[in-house]
Amino acid sequence: MRNFDENTITDAVLARIAGASDPRVRQISEALVRHLHAFVREVRPTQKEWEYGIDFLTRTGHMCDDKRQEFILLSDTLGVSMLVDAINHPVPEGATETTVLGPFFVQAAPERQVGDDISGGMEGDPLLVTGSVSAVDGRPLADAVVDVWHSDDNGYYDVQQLDKIGDLAMRARFRTNADGRFHFWSIKPAAYPIPHNGPVGEMLEAQGRHPWRPAHVHFMISAPGFEQLVTHVFVDGDKYLDSDVVFGVKDSLVREFVRYPAGRAADGRVTNTSHFHLNYDFGLKRIAAAKQE
Amino acid sequence: MRNFDENTITDAVLARIAGASDPRVRQISEALVRHLHAFVREVRPTQKEWEYGIDFLTRTGHMCDDKRQEFILLSDTLGVSMLVDAINHPVPEGATETTVLGPFFVQAAPERQVGDDISGGMEGDPLLVTGSVSAVDGRPLADAVVDVWHSDDNGYYDVQQLDKIGDLAMRARFRTNADGRFHFWSIKPAAYPIPHNGPVGEMLEAQGRHPWRPAHVHFMISAPGFEQLVTHVFVDGDKYLDSDVVFGVKDSLVREFVRYPAGRAADGRVTNTSHFHLNYDFGLKRIAAAKQE
Repeated sequence: MRNFDENTITDAVLARIAGASDPRVRQISEALVRHLHAFVREVRPTQKEWEYGIDFLTRTGHMCDDKRQEFILLSDTLGVSMLVDAINHPVPEGATETTVLGPFFVQAAPERQVGDDISGGMEGDPLLVTGSVSAVDGRPLADAVVDVWHSDDNGYYDVQQLDKIGDLAMRARFRTNADGRFHFWSIKPAAYPIPHNGPVGEMLEAQGRHPWRPAHVHFMISAPGFEQLVTHVFVDGDKYLDSDVVFGVKDSLVREFVRYPAGRAADGRVTNTSHFHLNYDFGLKRIAAAKQE
Repeated sequence: MRNFDENTITDAVLARIAGASDPRVRQISEALVRHLHAFVREVRPTQKEWEYGIDFLTRTGHMCDDKRQEFILLSDTLGVSMLVDAINHPVPEGATETTVLGPFFVQAAPERQVGDDISGGMEGDPLLVTGSVSAVDGRPLADAVVDVWHSDDNGYYDVQQLDKIGDLAMRARFRTNADGRFHFWSIKPAAYPIPHNGPVGEMLEAQGRHPWRPAHVHFMISAPGFEQLVTHVFVDGDKYLDSDVVFGVKDSLVREFVRYPAGRAADGRVTNTSHFHLNYDFGLKRIAAAKQE
């Protein structure tokens, strides 16, 4: 196999990978070559543009470390993460919709008791979050694991400012009670730009896009026999709901964070300032018998 | 814009980048999103496969440094480099065909005189290279700059073993004489595997492919008013000519390296061992008036 031109080289590469022993590797490799070559044939990059592409990918890789994942940001901002999410999470009636995990999840979040204040002393408007976890048929799920995490009043997560605040905050792991319910106190999160001082920020600027995400609280909920739910609840009224840089917003995930005056809150606690209250009832779907992930 | 499913998200991303001020950025971004989403929709990656892809790209980036460019290797082995080369270098009658630059070019190669031995004392079969540089109409080009570089007898370049050999070798920059000719002595290069101890090697193995390139000598030739020529001349008879891992072989670039017994060589030098002789006559094309690169 020699003498390839811009039309024959694709078949040459496909022939070369036809011997892959794993059929899935072969399928993905073949599709990658076909779509990648079609992209190149369509845009007809100059050598200089190709060099820019190589350099962009290299700088994206060099920006990745244990605190930052620039390739996930690239996937998020090109809509690929939400596309993969949509493919993997069809949502039956009664089940909560999913959205991106994002880069700020921490595996070892502190375990807290229902009713705790998880704000870690951060300044902001007090927020009471109440919620329930049930199966799609409405049966409450006791002892479900509920991970929550969200930004502070300025749009920063704890892990972005550990040197300043010293410890994890606005982040916890709860277990639902016998009624499948949980609640906790924290502060109201703010909208924030994704990290945009790297190649992805350079791409967004060239594409005429802002880097902002609307304010939200992350939830990851697990219960034996059910698919793990990864989602957010967004703050209704946020000005970025229709232009989330990672395309993560779904109407079913937007809720009013209701403002209440000082006095007795929904959980019985008496506050001497106004506070916000978010309630969300989550529905989990059973793991299908033949489910492979 | 909210509530995207696997079919509507592509238009949502396209709408978001429609405001790019540079039309070329917009064109490339739109094509990238369309082809990338089509690839994802076709292969329907699981979350785990998506995570593998993110990790593969991250490791590829981390493998890149001033001595190694894993993303160029990825482009080469997926046939993208030769595709970009074919798009950018249509070859008129009489012009030499092009092939990949490869990762071992060095900008500051040592300037040498026509007739010099550039082997740097490396062991191997002596090789006399003779050649000419002319325009496609046959007019000889005097004072053209000819960069040459090639591997040693074991398939390694100088820059891969600098700690052992101490200096650049099998690499030089010549200028053609008044007749547009040049010649030099070195050693016969060998076939070699591209660096395959990284993600690209992992990919090749999964795809059931070997990492070898057939033996060749690199040439980069420049003359004022002509397009720079980047090419190789391959050793006829090499067993990897039909399976070059980067798809770079063209019949017009394959030449017999003719073996001669001890005695007087073509340049008049007398050798006391046998030697090989390669001759290649290069044709350069004029830069088109409106050429933009």
